[in-house]
Amino acid sequence: MASSDVKVLGAGPSPYVNRVQIALNLKSVDYEFLEEKFGSKSELLLKSNPVHKKIPVMIHGGKPICESLIIVQYIEEVWTDGPSILPSDPYDRAMARFWAAYVDDKCWPTLRGLRSTEGEEAKAAALEQVKEDMVLLEDAFTKCGKGKDFFGGDTIGYLDIAFGSFLGWVRMTEKMADIKLIDEAKTPGLFGWAERFGSNAAVKDVIPETDKLVELVKMMAARPKA
Amino acid sequence: MASSDVKVLGAGPSPYVNRVQIALNLKSVDYEFLEEKFGSKSELLLKSNPVHKKIPVMIHGGKPICESLIIVQYIEEVWTDGPSILPSDPYDRAMARFWAAYVDDKCWPTLRGLRSTEGEEAKAAALEQVKEDMVLLEDAFTKCGKGKDFFGGDTIGYLDIAFGSFLGWVRMTEKMADIKLIDEAKTPGLFGWAERFGSNAAVKDVIPETDKLVELVKMMAARPKA
Repeated sequence: MASSDVKVLGAGPSPYVNRVQIALNLKSVDYEFLEEKFGSKSELLLKSNPVHKKIPVMIHGGKPICESLIIVQYIEEVWTDGPSILPSDPYDRAMARFWAAYVDDKCWPTLRGLRSTEGEEAKAAALEQVKEDMVLLEDAFTKCGKGKDFFGGDTIGYLDIAFGSFLGWVRMTEKMADIKLIDEAKTPGLFGWAERFGSNAAVKDVIPETDKLVELVKMMAARPKA
Repeated sequence: MASSDVKVLGAGPSPYVNRVQIALNLKSVDYEFLEEKFGSKSELLLKSNPVHKKIPVMIHGGKPICESLIIVQYIEEVWTDGPSILPSDPYDRAMARFWAAYVDDKCWPTLRGLRSTEGEEAKAAALEQVKEDMVLLEDAFTKCGKGKDFFGGDTIGYLDIAFGSFLGWVRMTEKMADIKLIDEAKTPGLFGWAERFGSNAAVKDVIPETDKLVELVKMMAARPKA
């Protein structure tokens, strides 16, 4: 690991925090992980991200950087020695950014909706939407990855990190609802990709285990509502 | 103007479209503007942006790029000869990206809310929120611009484009509600910046005139509701 002065304020189950951890791992940058306790915010967090008051925050040389994908781009631009996270071609970069924004703005809210939506009809509509999202991402995988192992080609890149950080949550949702979202028959590219991504050295100790997320979600559901 | 093969699908009053136009002007790239008619979507738009079906789309050498700030970054990365739109320092780039996302995710929805909110109390709360946003952006101006003319320093940069594209809409809102949002006393930095930005050669023929936006908004308000 390269010598660095990097702290990450986060929590293990957060996909947004996981993105920062994966990017740092890919670049072989060591970092101190400062766990934020569930339900409270540390003084350091409030001071470092006064606008959103949210994790992740990465503090590098005393300077805080916020927002997961902005942090990932910062990591790419500071540690230029490691493997590239963004493609070198401007069009490929634009595509990676486009689909990463799609994951955040569309897929993730729909996936969350699938858990929180009540009523059978609404649940079925939400499930249909998640499945459509997966088909779109299958297409993006083919186009961005150009037939290789990852969205980033031969190695894990920006869109792998953006989407892959949700893999634990996708699997937890599959398990709890007894459904298949990343389906070997319907989205074979994503199916193989998910296996490769999840077992990659930079990822495997970062992405939370499915069973732990199941437990966490059950615990959160059992909390008395405010 | 440099020789290019660039088409922009857009509409004059759209701040998102204006971002693309300003970035291309800054880089001295000529382009063909294909006006999308209000209330309908062209075949070319549907084909070029099948996911979101939204303007702006920039088509460069036959390839479509979508989402305004992704297009601006693409322009920066393709036409490297012109003035830099993003700062060279990774931390400064992260700050510009952070505040640009803030403008899109927080300021613009609040500004729109100020017009659409009903009830005096809710309107007062929305106005308070917009004013708080302006104070935050005044602080960002000081930090990002380092005492110079623009958020980008000596020249117009990424955050100038992201925030400045809304200037016509800010002024229209000020005029229609008879209020001050960018206030000479409370946000003197932004006040001077807005004058400089709006009169810049790359901007002045792009940002819609306040009176035209007032007319447009009145016309839209008068339409029968679907």
